[in-house]
Amino acid sequence: MSKAISKKRPLTTDEKAAEAAKRQIKSAEEVLVHVRKLSKLIEREPRIAKGLAALDLPQACREVVDKDAGAVLDEVEAAIYVVASSILRGEGFSYDIPSRAKGNQLYLPELDRIVLKDSTSQRPFASTSTCRKAVFTTRVLGLVHELCMKQIHVTKRDLFYTDVKLFEDQGNSDAILDDVACFLGCTRSSLHVVASEKGVVVGRLTYREDGDLIDCQRMGVGGKAIPPNVDKVTDIQSDALFILLVEKDAAFMRLAEDRFYNTYPCIILTAKGQPDVASRLFLRKLRDTLRIPVLALVDSDPYGLKILSVYMKGSMNMSYDSSNLTTPDIKWLGVRPSDLDRFNIPQQCRLPMTDEDIRTGKRLLEEDFIQANAEWVKELEIMISSKVKAEIQALSSFGFQYLSQVYLPLKLQEGDWI
Amino acid sequence: MSKAISKKRPLTTDEKAAEAAKRQIKSAEEVLVHVRKLSKLIEREPRIAKGLAALDLPQACREVVDKDAGAVLDEVEAAIYVVASSILRGEGFSYDIPSRAKGNQLYLPELDRIVLKDSTSQRPFASTSTCRKAVFTTRVLGLVHELCMKQIHVTKRDLFYTDVKLFEDQGNSDAILDDVACFLGCTRSSLHVVASEKGVVVGRLTYREDGDLIDCQRMGVGGKAIPPNVDKVTDIQSDALFILLVEKDAAFMRLAEDRFYNTYPCIILTAKGQPDVASRLFLRKLRDTLRIPVLALVDSDPYGLKILSVYMKGSMNMSYDSSNLTTPDIKWLGVRPSDLDRFNIPQQCRLPMTDEDIRTGKRLLEEDFIQANAEWVKELEIMISSKVKAEIQALSSFGFQYLSQVYLPLKLQEGDWI
Repeated sequence: MSKAISKKRPLTTDEKAAEAAKRQIKSAEEVLVHVRKLSKLIEREPRIAKGLAALDLPQACREVVDKDAGAVLDEVEAAIYVVASSILRGEGFSYDIPSRAKGNQLYLPELDRIVLKDSTSQRPFASTSTCRKAVFTTRVLGLVHELCMKQIHVTKRDLFYTDVKLFEDQGNSDAILDDVACFLGCTRSSLHVVASEKGVVVGRLTYREDGDLIDCQRMGVGGKAIPPNVDKVTDIQSDALFILLVEKDAAFMRLAEDRFYNTYPCIILTAKGQPDVASRLFLRKLRDTLRIPVLALVDSDPYGLKILSVYMKGSMNMSYDSSNLTTPDIKWLGVRPSDLDRFNIPQQCRLPMTDEDIRTGKRLLEEDFIQANAEWVKELEIMISSKVKAEIQALSSFGFQYLSQVYLPLKLQEGDWI
Repeated sequence: MSKAISKKRPLTTDEKAAEAAKRQIKSAEEVLVHVRKLSKLIEREPRIAKGLAALDLPQACREVVDKDAGAVLDEVEAAIYVVASSILRGEGFSYDIPSRAKGNQLYLPELDRIVLKDSTSQRPFASTSTCRKAVFTTRVLGLVHELCMKQIHVTKRDLFYTDVKLFEDQGNSDAILDDVACFLGCTRSSLHVVASEKGVVVGRLTYREDGDLIDCQRMGVGGKAIPPNVDKVTDIQSDALFILLVEKDAAFMRLAEDRFYNTYPCIILTAKGQPDVASRLFLRKLRDTLRIPVLALVDSDPYGLKILSVYMKGSMNMSYDSSNLTTPDIKWLGVRPSDLDRFNIPQQCRLPMTDEDIRTGKRLLEEDFIQANAEWVKELEIMISSKVKAEIQALSSFGFQYLSQVYLPLKLQEGDWI
């Protein structure tokens, strides 16, 4: 049954307030005026995929790039050729591995992200302290070669299990895999080792995935699962004006069921909490290809901001690959601490922050990506001083569809992002 | 680049063994002979959607059924009519709520699942001990009425947030929601309150989701996200011979990338670990509509079996809805404890069971759904006495594609499920 059942009941006070707010919303075209302006600005900007080479840096820095299977095979073979010649010369062998330690990381304000400096460490086979690591490295190079030859993708767990005898612990093969990515100068996904998928997407987007044409506007209410191997995503096309990045599954579901993207042309994406590598790569790829703004809808708490920071700045651990994983210019649409009063969120839907929340909030306040934006600082200060947080779902107190029918349209109409 | 790159290297011993095993695999048609036989058997069986009414039980039992929005509205209005008349008679009001306590649960061997007996408890408004619950119940009835009128779906969290002042804790609204489902005699999804989605599906399956035609054979490598509201899934069509239920994301990825379903016509489904309600409802719906066997690929450990038990028997908490959530006749394809020796899984890929694993294994051995199948008992006894477990990924020790190219085809060819 798709026809709404027509029975009437009187509205509650909260619903009346929501109805009043709803009357402020103009036509979809008028609502989208500010978004269109933002899109224009972004189109005119230089591409965010700015590389290290474009900068005139005083010191050498290192960043990995996406390479195709053939190029990775060449890199592996070149590395093994060096090893083999060294052995034939009677000199044994050693790998010169870039250091991924904190001391070798550098925040580059020009790129607004963390990159690796150029220090490396020797990993000779003929040393008791590095012998095992040298063997692990050789084995991982061999396995990566096999994956690229067969053109298949596996998980880190699969890689570990191909030689449990040798690696003993998955921590060993995982660490060596990141070393090998740095060593070969390519991204971990270029090595055909992928993360498991968690994200879903719906909206005004079509693309090809391993050849199949995917139309995200015809994905029902559940959406399309974001593939673990983003290099199989090609032919991205869209008439969306913006990407709506949603922290929570529940909000995604509401927007998908209400087909929010039909009225306000957008692509809706969620990684269901802490973002996985595949979702981050996918967002970045969409952003680079389509050059449209990314607006974020997260909980009004330090954890929501931490999630934004992972999308925007990446994690320390993967800093060698920050150029492919991060989407720097995400706009914070909501739910912002100042929204709580502005939208009269009932006191009961505001939750007290724990001591840990407040500590996390204060730490975030120190971080570059917050400091870089005075408005973000102001919002975070409101959060910390008021000591209250709120989830996206707090908006449900005005009715189940308040999010899709009132809150988001009003936010867009007013261009209320920072 | 989709063409495999043609460089040769010598095979390892493990890979030679895998090649030898691969040579045993006959044509796809021959591999599928046993599956076809099983399908025929299942087609001839009476539908598993056997209701309580069909049984001549000595005592009254209670089970909920799926109802459409109109029917739920009628139930809610009838309940409120009773309440209103009682108030107008000056008698206040009370709800007669079915008990969901353990003492009111009954395992029915005829149905091979747990149902509720018919004891109920009064929930009068005019009693200090039940006053709040009576109010919660009234409020949830009102919210469900709204959802069914608007024909929208929300999560349990959304429901809680519509009246935080009243419910105070989500535990309160969650418990009342299950009470209301029992009280109205319908499933929780009929109330338009859904779980968040986690599962994905690929393979020989088409269906309509909220009107959109979904072709799971054209879903690339990431698959289609299973929708949270399974009642929006209609028009299920498939030429698959079986459903392959996979515990882990990584195995799903391998099979999806290798397009396993092209050679062996099947539907591949995973809930990525512990199954959520949406995936269980979806599996059951596929099974009922298509009447094809469900073969399970889980880790060879007690946790893998526990996951099977949730698909097959459901959880105690949702026993009032066991008839819609469970798929009783799942076949255990692998990885079974006896496979470890049979397929020569290297010792290093076998993990020692912890004391907790062994305790869980022993508890499982007592359970009806294991006891009902002598072969399952035997396998579980092998696991407990050998004290070793293994993950699906242990098969990667013979090469990354051993699972899709050797293990599964051999298992199918031999009809090796129990």
